[in-house]
Amino acid sequence: MINGKNLIDGVWVGSDNVAHSADLAGQSFALATKAQVNAACQAARRDFRAYSKTARGERAAFLRAIAEEIDKLGDEITRTGMAETGLPEMRLIGERGRTTGQLRMFADLIEGTDYLDIRKDGALPDRAPLPRPDLRLTHKAIGPVVVFGASNFPLAFSTAGGDTASALAAGCPVIVKGHSAHAGTADLVAQAIETAILACNMPKATFQMLQGSGREVGSALVQHPEITAVGFTGSLAGGRELYDQCHARPHPIPFYGELGSVNPMFCLPAAMDARAAEIGAGWAASLTMGAGQFCTNPGIAVMVKGDPADALEAACVDALRKTPEQKMLTDGIHKAFESGVKGVSGLIEEVAGCGTAKAARSGLPALFKVTARAWMANPILQQEIFGSAGIIVLCDDVAEMVELAEILEGQLTVTLHLDDADADLAAVLMPIVEEKAGRILANGFATGVEVCSSMMHGGPYPASTDVRATSVGTLAIARWLRPVSYQNIPSALLPSELRE
Amino acid sequence: MINGKNLIDGVWVGSDNVAHSADLAGQSFALATKAQVNAACQAARRDFRAYSKTARGERAAFLRAIAEEIDKLGDEITRTGMAETGLPEMRLIGERGRTTGQLRMFADLIEGTDYLDIRKDGALPDRAPLPRPDLRLTHKAIGPVVVFGASNFPLAFSTAGGDTASALAAGCPVIVKGHSAHAGTADLVAQAIETAILACNMPKATFQMLQGSGREVGSALVQHPEITAVGFTGSLAGGRELYDQCHARPHPIPFYGELGSVNPMFCLPAAMDARAAEIGAGWAASLTMGAGQFCTNPGIAVMVKGDPADALEAACVDALRKTPEQKMLTDGIHKAFESGVKGVSGLIEEVAGCGTAKAARSGLPALFKVTARAWMANPILQQEIFGSAGIIVLCDDVAEMVELAEILEGQLTVTLHLDDADADLAAVLMPIVEEKAGRILANGFATGVEVCSSMMHGGPYPASTDVRATSVGTLAIARWLRPVSYQNIPSALLPSELRE
Repeated sequence: MINGKNLIDGVWVGSDNVAHSADLAGQSFALATKAQVNAACQAARRDFRAYSKTARGERAAFLRAIAEEIDKLGDEITRTGMAETGLPEMRLIGERGRTTGQLRMFADLIEGTDYLDIRKDGALPDRAPLPRPDLRLTHKAIGPVVVFGASNFPLAFSTAGGDTASALAAGCPVIVKGHSAHAGTADLVAQAIETAILACNMPKATFQMLQGSGREVGSALVQHPEITAVGFTGSLAGGRELYDQCHARPHPIPFYGELGSVNPMFCLPAAMDARAAEIGAGWAASLTMGAGQFCTNPGIAVMVKGDPADALEAACVDALRKTPEQKMLTDGIHKAFESGVKGVSGLIEEVAGCGTAKAARSGLPALFKVTARAWMANPILQQEIFGSAGIIVLCDDVAEMVELAEILEGQLTVTLHLDDADADLAAVLMPIVEEKAGRILANGFATGVEVCSSMMHGGPYPASTDVRATSVGTLAIARWLRPVSYQNIPSALLPSELRE
Repeated sequence: MINGKNLIDGVWVGSDNVAHSADLAGQSFALATKAQVNAACQAARRDFRAYSKTARGERAAFLRAIAEEIDKLGDEITRTGMAETGLPEMRLIGERGRTTGQLRMFADLIEGTDYLDIRKDGALPDRAPLPRPDLRLTHKAIGPVVVFGASNFPLAFSTAGGDTASALAAGCPVIVKGHSAHAGTADLVAQAIETAILACNMPKATFQMLQGSGREVGSALVQHPEITAVGFTGSLAGGRELYDQCHARPHPIPFYGELGSVNPMFCLPAAMDARAAEIGAGWAASLTMGAGQFCTNPGIAVMVKGDPADALEAACVDALRKTPEQKMLTDGIHKAFESGVKGVSGLIEEVAGCGTAKAARSGLPALFKVTARAWMANPILQQEIFGSAGIIVLCDDVAEMVELAEILEGQLTVTLHLDDADADLAAVLMPIVEEKAGRILANGFATGVEVCSSMMHGGPYPASTDVRATSVGTLAIARWLRPVSYQNIPSALLPSELRE
């Protein structure tokens, strides 16, 4: 059952400021006050030392307990998530599996010590001209962490999602700012974590959850002196505002913002000759999955004009026209999508104007076409439209394709569709796109982010605010760790992993 | 022979804005113009792709060639450095060895692949419900880097110092902002690198050096759109200003600033009973080494009041009174030292007032004494005085010592002087100081930073602007790298280290 309150220091607390849910009949949520933000941050700091000192095995058991509790609440979470987000049942069941899978992946990770990057340089007492002391290095938890859930992943990127799982694994207490797009789902997941805290005897403030609308709670959280790092997935405007607040603090802190991307696809000529229609149909499927509400949704397809380009367009249009309208995550996202499509419609040719959806908060896909010259000249066309909107970008020749790659802004992903005969052009494009993106794909679609050790989900700004960091995969834990060096420290005082 | 110009894109260029050296008779230096800053940044970007694509073995050979060229110029560098910085001959000879040692250490490092943190997740085509693609991750060079040399290490932390060596090793072109405190030394080292560039056939703009006074050249460099990361060692005020500029950019970039530290020493009771005088004499030696101009100079010693504390004080005072005056690095640093000492003198008891030095730009050590209560209450006493100034902080009991540890700001180092009988108190202090510093020492002095794989030179703000980063040791290379993931990319297009 949904509490409708904030979880602070082990207690569910209400407030005078209550928001009524538009999606859950009769349900309301108490929005956190500034005093509650402060209380949560103080509690997180108080419990940081105890939690960060827990053995890695204890934290692994705790992460697995959270996964189990989420599994137990499964159907209720799925029903609530469906009502709040409009996402279909199978998607939410799958996302729950990804969420618990992530928690168990980080549990496995911290049972080993690879992620600590342990280094030892033994003493050399006889070295001339100076002896070398005994030096050992490991990585320690950075401190209390704030996590902002994503609108588009109510489970896998939210309350107990990747940021929370990796920060808890690292030994950092987490305060989640519940996303207003799925406050009830956040509430249920927070209860699952609360149960795991009690079962595993973890400090009460190991995990806390505050509800808030607008940016007031978020701003207060990231500027609180006891907070040491922030994980965020969301819009460029909102993310940049919080980023600026983090860096203007008296003591600045890292802000890991994943702010979205256009995810360009380059369709090389030989691949187009061989299977333009197949690429076009695959793109339509990728572009419309989850109403196009993925950070890695491929927003543009770049190709040389001609018959294969026409075939790709025809196949894509055909598939898009068969796509039913889909409910979007929030009214705000739906409005932004409609407005983005309208803005582009006024500028360039719409080749699949699918019309206006009938149901409220629902969208239909849109496909546009433009010359590379015009696309490069207009920054509006280069911006992400969050939702099922794609642009075919037509180059005069491959030289123009290379020119376009050179002017790309930072991206989460870049995809090359290529065949063997495209090798020379691909060899020219690769060093360019490697500078632009966190992940490079061949012959695939960027939606569908594998959670594994070699995943990089991030990229040069504006794709993310920290090009060195990933928010998906085991490397994500590095965001919440800092190196500490120990010189001649007696064994009993060393972190256990540094002892002989 | 000193050029007195700026090295831009392989050419030494002058300007109308010339500064005359106060230390090198008849020598002047052309200060870079804004147009020259722009030219250097553009050239660095142009050559980034070619340089970052060089084989690791080629870059290793290049780093070794720089070390050889610096060795060849050895005596001239030492003489010039002595004239400019006032540092003694043996120190500069030692620092040259450290500089060439660092270059060779990074050469060794990049001949292996450990630093790339390579990860591979092979394809699982039969996995249900979805197949797994082939995913591989490595780390790539971040882009053109700007390095600000340190005033206090004209060789090891400047033109070809640790930041430059690690960035060049990573595959990033470097633009050094020559430090005005040793413009001639910077000029000579830049020539050594230039020779190595030609000998190794590296792109011309792989390394460039711009002279500048004030912050104009520095501000223009860090705000240039083609620059992707900055390494800085210097003052809190100057570093914070550049940090703010980096994060306010349209596309923010990492700023790795090492801004100094008070480096507290905690002298535990049993150790004090056993060897208070020894600790006091050792502190005096550490405090006055290099006129106290080390980032890791121990500025305060915290102990319980009583006879051992008096013995420590007496031994320290005795040693300090025998210390001759020492020339400081610059007029500005000398003035700041005198002013810092004067400021503290007005607030608390000076126990070794060593008077005013006779020679210009020279300093004599100063030692103060204060209660822990008073020290904790006054932020002015908690600030670093760059130079040979120390404060004995007297606690009523060990509880107050723990209380003081809790309120410490971020530090590069914290030292515990302890004996076996101090184990219980040390166990209380360790988790506290681990949160405060990048390096924890037992029974040593923090000056003397070992360059090795397990060194961490950095710490929570204000010690450094990025608690995750070190500017000394092999881990320093991580500052200039970013992860990139490759999904189903044909082998021929992969970075060589990711191929089967």
